[in-house]
Amino acid sequence: MNTVASDVIDGIPTHKIRLNDTTLRDGSHAVRHQYTKDQVKKIARALDDAGVEMIEVTHGDGLGGSSFNYGFSHTRDIELIEAAVEEVKNAKIAALMLPGLGTVKDLKEAKSAGASIVRVATHCTEADISIQHFQAARELGFETGGFLMLSHRIPPAELAKQARIMVDAGCQCVFVVDSAGYLVMNQAADRVKAVVEEIGDDAQVGFHGHQNLGFGVANSLLAVVNGARQIDGTLYGLGAGAGNAPIEVLATVFNRTGIDIGNVDQAKLRDAAEDILKPMVERLPMMDRGSIVQGEFGVYNSFLLHAQRAAERYGVPAATILEEVGRRGYVGGQEDMIIDVAIDLAKQK
Amino acid sequence: MNTVASDVIDGIPTHKIRLNDTTLRDGSHAVRHQYTKDQVKKIARALDDAGVEMIEVTHGDGLGGSSFNYGFSHTRDIELIEAAVEEVKNAKIAALMLPGLGTVKDLKEAKSAGASIVRVATHCTEADISIQHFQAARELGFETGGFLMLSHRIPPAELAKQARIMVDAGCQCVFVVDSAGYLVMNQAADRVKAVVEEIGDDAQVGFHGHQNLGFGVANSLLAVVNGARQIDGTLYGLGAGAGNAPIEVLATVFNRTGIDIGNVDQAKLRDAAEDILKPMVERLPMMDRGSIVQGEFGVYNSFLLHAQRAAERYGVPAATILEEVGRRGYVGGQEDMIIDVAIDLAKQK
Repeated sequence: MNTVASDVIDGIPTHKIRLNDTTLRDGSHAVRHQYTKDQVKKIARALDDAGVEMIEVTHGDGLGGSSFNYGFSHTRDIELIEAAVEEVKNAKIAALMLPGLGTVKDLKEAKSAGASIVRVATHCTEADISIQHFQAARELGFETGGFLMLSHRIPPAELAKQARIMVDAGCQCVFVVDSAGYLVMNQAADRVKAVVEEIGDDAQVGFHGHQNLGFGVANSLLAVVNGARQIDGTLYGLGAGAGNAPIEVLATVFNRTGIDIGNVDQAKLRDAAEDILKPMVERLPMMDRGSIVQGEFGVYNSFLLHAQRAAERYGVPAATILEEVGRRGYVGGQEDMIIDVAIDLAKQK
Repeated sequence: MNTVASDVIDGIPTHKIRLNDTTLRDGSHAVRHQYTKDQVKKIARALDDAGVEMIEVTHGDGLGGSSFNYGFSHTRDIELIEAAVEEVKNAKIAALMLPGLGTVKDLKEAKSAGASIVRVATHCTEADISIQHFQAARELGFETGGFLMLSHRIPPAELAKQARIMVDAGCQCVFVVDSAGYLVMNQAADRVKAVVEEIGDDAQVGFHGHQNLGFGVANSLLAVVNGARQIDGTLYGLGAGAGNAPIEVLATVFNRTGIDIGNVDQAKLRDAAEDILKPMVERLPMMDRGSIVQGEFGVYNSFLLHAQRAAERYGVPAATILEEVGRRGYVGGQEDMIIDVAIDLAKQK
């Protein structure tokens, strides 16, 4: 790829990078999936006005995520998608889906509601369960993205093979997803690089970072110089665990670095974070004991609030629960096991 | 230097890195210099118990910082130093001083109170004003460190010359200080490298990072692989602007990376942050609009709360004040100019 000089980092590409916003999806974890239509409208409007081209709106665990296991939404996904679609002038609205939770029926409803992008998320070793969903999404005319979650759990070469499965099924951008905020520097860069090398020009590569060990922004920058074309962020870093790479910081740093982010306006994003989002949120995610432990032990970030609730109920520290969950290697979908861990630990006391 | 293999980053040194804690000095900015003796004792005890070898205790602006211009302390520096010294078993207690604010008399008092390290801080172009203070500190038997503040303002080669002035005066560790959290990746690495090359084995090099653009931890890691031997952090990142590199995250990441941090216990640091520090603090620093603007425009982080107060008084947004302060290039010591900027901006409205 062609590159431009920068005193920040070598290898800045000349092509445009798309900054995706997932405040209204990953951020939903941090508000226990309680977004209202009015909140979604305000946030979508502010993001659209700041030039963000892609806004993801779904329950934190995607279409169909509203459930006993994952936590119920305040308002149905489809209504929230409709609300966002009504509000934006230029941005595309995306929906996330986890196969098994979301179905093809959900995809059709999302399409009718005006969503134009679908991202299908699987554990990093299970790309094969996404195949039928990518096919259905493409047939429905969606732009597609694929999430390889907890991507630290397998080496770069294996991750690249999983990416190939998604691309062959119709995925147009495979995301290296650092669901635990575990990856540090080369651990992120090498995964992006391996996936880029594997899929070449067949599809784009993206990166979705979390802040658990403070590397959300740095890893995103490393992803770009290793060939990633789409980078996820959220306003104020709102998201699961320690939160995501803050999109207003990504924009500021990318501009400093000479990365082309199109018409995204960093000052408007900072205003959106401060004036629109912050007043809506009771508690912003941080690098705290629980989320740092998630980063250390590679624990799925969506587990944080589940562990905190189990901690209150069973009198065991959340960080201790998360550490044990990490040792046992649980993945997204095993939220119910958190309770089992808490009960086991409470017995041991 | 000898290095060990790591999948995180190339060039991990085999020598030990000292993690310094400045929760009780840089963190003092974030609590408006209102630490009590009891708070200092609790924090110092927890840090010492976690194996931290160096704990800095002073007004945010150093010895003699308690004043109308910088903000008055709740308790005198000397009493806080004594409180910390009483409490620790192994850690050395450090004091910061800015020439002009702190005097040789203050150094003598700090020595009597039990401090054993002095760090002398100047703007990055003014190392020459530190000469007599290093001489006095060495004569008094202190271990010494030197802070080159706002180090982004001059290129690496010029910074190296300033470092040489400090070392020739008796400084035993020169810190590249990113006082605005402005530096990103190579901008930090190249400065550390240039200083290391200049001073060779004559003294150590350190790095003091801030979080304004999310690079406090990443830059610290880059500093280590470029030869820095001392790295500053604070519990929960408490500090000026967006806060410092959180010491509990530094410890976790350094362990992951294979960096030798001696007996520092990352889990105990997380507990200290969560159980001891957090309950004392009303508002933890974050990457918010004001502090991101500081990172973007290279504004001295200690100005944040001053700008917020001026914003309230004159009805101009703090971020706008900080942006203008950045344009005018003010440095530490020009806190009073913030009011002038606010008045000018208020008139323009």
